Amino acid sequence: MKNIVLIGSGNVATHLGLSLVNKGYIIKQVWSNHRRNANILAKRLDSRSIDDLKDIKDADLYIVTVKDDALESVIEQLDANNIIHTSGGNGLDVFDNKCENYGVFYPLQTFNKDVNLDFSKTPLCIEANNKFFENKLMKIGGDLSNTVVRMDSEQRKKLHIAAVFACNFTNHMFTIADTMLERSDINFKILMPIIHQTVLKLEDSKPSEVQTGPAIRKDRKMIQNHISNLPDKETKEIYKLISESIMAGNG
Amino acid sequence: MKNIVLIGSGNVATHLGLSLVNKGYIIKQVWSNHRRNANILAKRLDSRSIDDLKDIKDADLYIVTVKDDALESVIEQLDANNIIHTSGGNGLDVFDNKCENYGVFYPLQTFNKDVNLDFSKTPLCIEANNKFFENKLMKIGGDLSNTVVRMDSEQRKKLHIAAVFACNFTNHMFTIADTMLERSDINFKILMPIIHQTVLKLEDSKPSEVQTGPAIRKDRKMIQNHISNLPDKETKEIYKLISESIMAGNG
Repeated sequence: MKNIVLIGSGNVATHLGLSLVNKGYIIKQVWSNHRRNANILAKRLDSRSIDDLKDIKDADLYIVTVKDDALESVIEQLDANNIIHTSGGNGLDVFDNKCENYGVFYPLQTFNKDVNLDFSKTPLCIEANNKFFENKLMKIGGDLSNTVVRMDSEQRKKLHIAAVFACNFTNHMFTIADTMLERSDINFKILMPIIHQTVLKLEDSKPSEVQTGPAIRKDRKMIQNHISNLPDKETKEIYKLISESIMAGNG
Repeated sequence: MKNIVLIGSGNVATHLGLSLVNKGYIIKQVWSNHRRNANILAKRLDSRSIDDLKDIKDADLYIVTVKDDALESVIEQLDANNIIHTSGGNGLDVFDNKCENYGVFYPLQTFNKDVNLDFSKTPLCIEANNKFFENKLMKIGGDLSNTVVRMDSEQRKKLHIAAVFACNFTNHMFTIADTMLERSDINFKILMPIIHQTVLKLEDSKPSEVQTGPAIRKDRKMIQNHISNLPDKETKEIYKLISESIMAGNG
């Protein structure tokens, strides 16, 4: 399983492709419907770019790593065996039993093309339609990462949602803080120690046990004061809802 | 300014007290209206506990670090000079010009009594009602931390709100993820690499520039799918609101 075709040229395709090449795999082709993106990534991977799925050549493995909303239609157009996708939120059902071996290879990570990453620390969640193919995927996973786990579609879907909260929504909390500070001419870097400590606490504690701030103290006066200082309706509503959730002990 | 009275025995009082003692300051007394808490902290600080504010002795500095909603009434009862509070969300106005020297000494950190902390990495934001006292506070700050900044009440209030988003609300995102995973028998630790990467990206990028996930891709199908998989109305509403805020480019 050394020859691979990469269907996609986005953030995941970039980091997964680089990691595979780094471990001796050959990316025979890179497809994207944006030819320019395919070209750029093909160059980084010492590969060739195509923009028509009909031009795909024989390979040992086809990795479909396109936007979730394009996943089904791209897979449908593929005339191949040994196909995997990398989506946390999609199951094996998107393959609709179209070939002998298919599976999922979900890297639990936040990928940006231009941000470096130690791929070996990215957990890989593996699922396949048969044991034989699953073992092959586990082996490839083991070449790329120190953490490779078998996980079914139902569990992976929950993990994907949890990751949206722990990563995507967390990053948006940072964005709101950043915008707030920018307006007051304060450098965001001053928040780095408190952010690091927030994450460090997770090493030994459940997050619910180490919650701090006005909401866990049920300090409604401070909460009102903060809300009245926020610049727009949407951010006020976010502050209010999350504070209520903390006060109610939800999670 | 070596002899200090600590008014409060909570998370901030504990870490600030430990750091002061560690740097050679003497905590003469620890007050709390919970005598037991005052006893415990006094023991850790080689100090004496009191539970009546009338029993306070002469000292060079009085640090009021009580819950925000008790701040005004505690300060009002204090018969002393050289008083500071440690609240990000309160200004100099709570002192109501009651003495010659007063100020704010705000440590920008998330404190839990039983979680260790490197206090020298905690930014300290200093404000006082006169230059003389401000310089004294800057000097004490410099003994405790590598980052000491002068900051007025208006800026500090904004910083405090930003910290609620970047720390308290971020931690609640972790709590929601934790609860979600617990229900599916998945260990929260699997999220640590993606959380570390989310924070690592802040070193070189603005958070808005490295946002990932379904909302920034405007993947409404996945968003709906996730919302339908969430267990309660409140968490669904939080998912929806934050996703809309990301899609709108708010912050």
